[in-house]
Amino acid sequence: MQLCPFTLCNKHFKDGVFSEVFHVNEADANLALLPEGLDIATATMLSDMVLTGFHGVELADVQFGDDVCVIGIGPVGLMAVAAASIRGASNLYAVGSRKKCIEVAKAYGATDIINYREGDIVEQIMEKTKGKGVDRVVIAGGNEDTMIQAITMLKPGGRIGNVNHLGSGDYIKIPRLEWGCGMGHKTISGGLMPGGRRRMEKLASLVITGRVDPSLMLTYKFNGFDYIEEALMLMKNKPADLIKPVVIL
Amino acid sequence: MQLCPFTLCNKHFKDGVFSEVFHVNEADANLALLPEGLDIATATMLSDMVLTGFHGVELADVQFGDDVCVIGIGPVGLMAVAAASIRGASNLYAVGSRKKCIEVAKAYGATDIINYREGDIVEQIMEKTKGKGVDRVVIAGGNEDTMIQAITMLKPGGRIGNVNHLGSGDYIKIPRLEWGCGMGHKTISGGLMPGGRRRMEKLASLVITGRVDPSLMLTYKFNGFDYIEEALMLMKNKPADLIKPVVIL
Amino acid sequence: MQLCPFTLCNKHFKDGVFSEVFHVNEADANLALLPEGLDIATATMLSDMVLTGFHGVELADVQFGDDVCVIGIGPVGLMAVAAASIRGASNLYAVGSRKKCIEVAKAYGATDIINYREGDIVEQIMEKTKGKGVDRVVIAGGNEDTMIQAITMLKPGGRIGNVNHLGSGDYIKIPRLEWGCGMGHKTISGGLMPGGRRRMEKLASLVITGRVDPSLMLTYKFNGFDYIEEALMLMKNKPADLIKPVVIL
Amino acid sequence: MQLCPFTLCNKHFKDGVFSEVFHVNEADANLALLPEGLDIATATMLSDMVLTGFHGVELADVQFGDDVCVIGIGPVGLMAVAAASIRGASNLYAVGSRKKCIEVAKAYGATDIINYREGDIVEQIMEKTKGKGVDRVVIAGGNEDTMIQAITMLKPGGRIGNVNHLGSGDYIKIPRLEWGCGMGHKTISGGLMPGGRRRMEKLASLVITGRVDPSLMLTYKFNGFDYIEEALMLMKNKPADLIKPVVIL
Repeated sequence: MQLCPFTLCNKHFKDGVFSEVFHVNEADANLALLPEGLDIATATMLSDMVLTGFHGVELADVQFGDDVCVIGIGPVGLMAVAAASIRGASNLYAVGSRKKCIEVAKAYGATDIINYREGDIVEQIMEKTKGKGVDRVVIAGGNEDTMIQAITMLKPGGRIGNVNHLGSGDYIKIPRLEWGCGMGHKTISGGLMPGGRRRMEKLASLVITGRVDPSLMLTYKFNGFDYIEEALMLMKNKPADLIKPVVIL
Repeated sequence: MQLCPFTLCNKHFKDGVFSEVFHVNEADANLALLPEGLDIATATMLSDMVLTGFHGVELADVQFGDDVCVIGIGPVGLMAVAAASIRGASNLYAVGSRKKCIEVAKAYGATDIINYREGDIVEQIMEKTKGKGVDRVVIAGGNEDTMIQAITMLKPGGRIGNVNHLGSGDYIKIPRLEWGCGMGHKTISGGLMPGGRRRMEKLASLVITGRVDPSLMLTYKFNGFDYIEEALMLMKNKPADLIKPVVIL
Repeated sequence: MQLCPFTLCNKHFKDGVFSEVFHVNEADANLALLPEGLDIATATMLSDMVLTGFHGVELADVQFGDDVCVIGIGPVGLMAVAAASIRGASNLYAVGSRKKCIEVAKAYGATDIINYREGDIVEQIMEKTKGKGVDRVVIAGGNEDTMIQAITMLKPGGRIGNVNHLGSGDYIKIPRLEWGCGMGHKTISGGLMPGGRRRMEKLASLVITGRVDPSLMLTYKFNGFDYIEEALMLMKNKPADLIKPVVIL
Repeated sequence: MQLCPFTLCNKHFKDGVFSEVFHVNEADANLALLPEGLDIATATMLSDMVLTGFHGVELADVQFGDDVCVIGIGPVGLMAVAAASIRGASNLYAVGSRKKCIEVAKAYGATDIINYREGDIVEQIMEKTKGKGVDRVVIAGGNEDTMIQAITMLKPGGRIGNVNHLGSGDYIKIPRLEWGCGMGHKTISGGLMPGGRRRMEKLASLVITGRVDPSLMLTYKFNGFDYIEEALMLMKNKPADLIKPVVIL
């Protein structure tokens, strides 16, 4: 079972998910059979990290040969990196700073790492693209000013896919001039990932056929119900080498 | 010849457009033959008002049975109203206040007029839609807060098409909560209309077949080069019954 | 209640549809509340004729200013004509021969009637379009050779939407040269219309707002259960002025 | 310079392409600068094999997790295999029989080889997919009956992209029942690949970033104008280990 941060949030809390049995609505539409050969720990990534990261790339509508920037390389951003690289991206800029995440981002197909601790990320992108910017941006992290950066580094005709939950502030700001005064054909989309059985089956088949390997993100594995507290504390304390912990029951 | 406000703006000024002959780049791609039966005064609307208003509806991607709000019913907004009504909109809310424009908006298929002088437009839309909001918004006017209103009145899954040139301010603001914290699948697009010969021919055929009648917007007509100054002054002074003036040479 | 020919076919027969109560699967997803003001006889058209005809236009992906040909103007084809005219078609060619259907096709926005009794329909279309052909074809009738005609009259880059149930023969034939030897970007799509509550609500709102009026097709109306047999016989015998009969209980 | 079979065909012959200088129409739109680091022999593949194979995958509209069948693994089909595998395919069935082509197809991401010499390809696909068929088919080879096979192995809702030039016969046949009697939502598209500078630049960037390596197909390389005849004869005689020859001037 995957320890999803949403389970820590009382808005999303559903009694019983940490129990042996629990209720699923519309099971035929929402429960997928694990395909043979799919590691159970890896499978836990499918319903959240994989779905969300892949959806970011769908929202940004990556096409063959696009230069893509993924902002944020926590687990969702890492899956967006993996998704962009099997969706046709050429140059793939991953924005992050944590050593373990950078290592995995490269394994997932990032061609360049943009470390925000080494300077403004827009400037770094513009330098690497010779002032042209990128075709697509997936926002999978950052703060309230990330949209400003995304619009600024985006080419006219480009598209932003946001899968980051924006938790504070009254407004997300679009920089007017960089948005072409509303005329620049820079499309902004953002959404919660669609789920469902068929989609899970499709994404599971990407794992089975070796197109994507979410297990690289499982940097901590535990066996047994007793380790749930420890795993939860890991997610709270976020040690340097943590991407996702998993507890196998 | 249509008196386009852009000709008053030195950034867009090209010597000779008010002359008897002038140069057109890539004529085969950019010049369309006027089809037989197309009134020359009406034709002047095609290359700016019709193209722009129709593109707003394309950006908003109106589908059969959508509830649509068009904000602004100057000539571009009026063409967006006409476009939405022949693109499958059902309830079609036109936001404006000028009497002549309201009259033409109704003729173009608006089912409801939302007058911003009679209260907050979002509240009016929400009341008329029983709290559900609309499926699509075309922004063809307004001010720096119009995007806030558009996002607020938009249903999750909806789409905004902006064709308004946003002329001032540093930022366009997206209201965070109303945007579903970035998760609400409310897509924002905006762009300058595409032009070209083929597109002009297609839109001209809509006029020829009677699907849209831009002539309703030609509230002032002049004959002769000498009237250009008068027509320009009309556009500057905007009398109550002006939508677009035209000068026929 | 609408007398659908499918009810005469034992493959689709479900006991009880002609009774006072019957079972609907997934009612929340499949039952729509009749909106206020929607005539009950007109409403019977929504779940079959309107859905199907409109889907043909969606499959053909009609865009602003497209020249469209609808082959077949039985009730489904008539709804495709109505749909194309509120989806942005300019010239709208309706292929049929029955007097009553021609009259209604014109009322629904057909600009030209192509009568197959007066010559080859492809030749007629080519003459009217000065040899260019049309941008979209909706197939809502015809026989096993209709696809050949549709491909032949279609421009490169065009699209065919088939909603006709093809009941006999081993193959549907695509003419090779006219299909550009497989290189002509003439897309062929065909499908059963999607249904569901939300879609019904959207299409119902098109009727309520006066965008489409399916009642023109109700050329025979009966009141009372006793008339079901008579209505069924009408559908079997197809008198000249029949489009659809309706029996109100 | 790439030795394209079209140059052997007098319909496509343009005097001078085998010379030191030749004329290109609209050079700004049609000539791309070779990016630094792109091998000149590999670059010859871009304007024909890569463009065409990739377009087949675009026409088939491959999505994350789709099961894809590519029929034909000559150079175009091989590029379709490579394209599908970086566009999100999971199971990727490549239909062919030549040993060298099979080897390269596997290197490009094919998960299964379907050899038509070992039985009916539809039966083989159906067995491997447990009777479900595939989501997408790219036709890059075969004969006049290939469309029949493609439709038969395609799931409802699927899509076929044809990039094979269909050179003989009067008709391409769609099997009626397998096409769902016209109701099965199996879309058939086919087209000549779009070209142009921007597209070439995008595809070149896929080579530069290592996403695709067309050089695996260059099984014969020559240096010098004198070898053109030998290279042409190779293309005519097609030895077992030939995929594409290249002559560097």
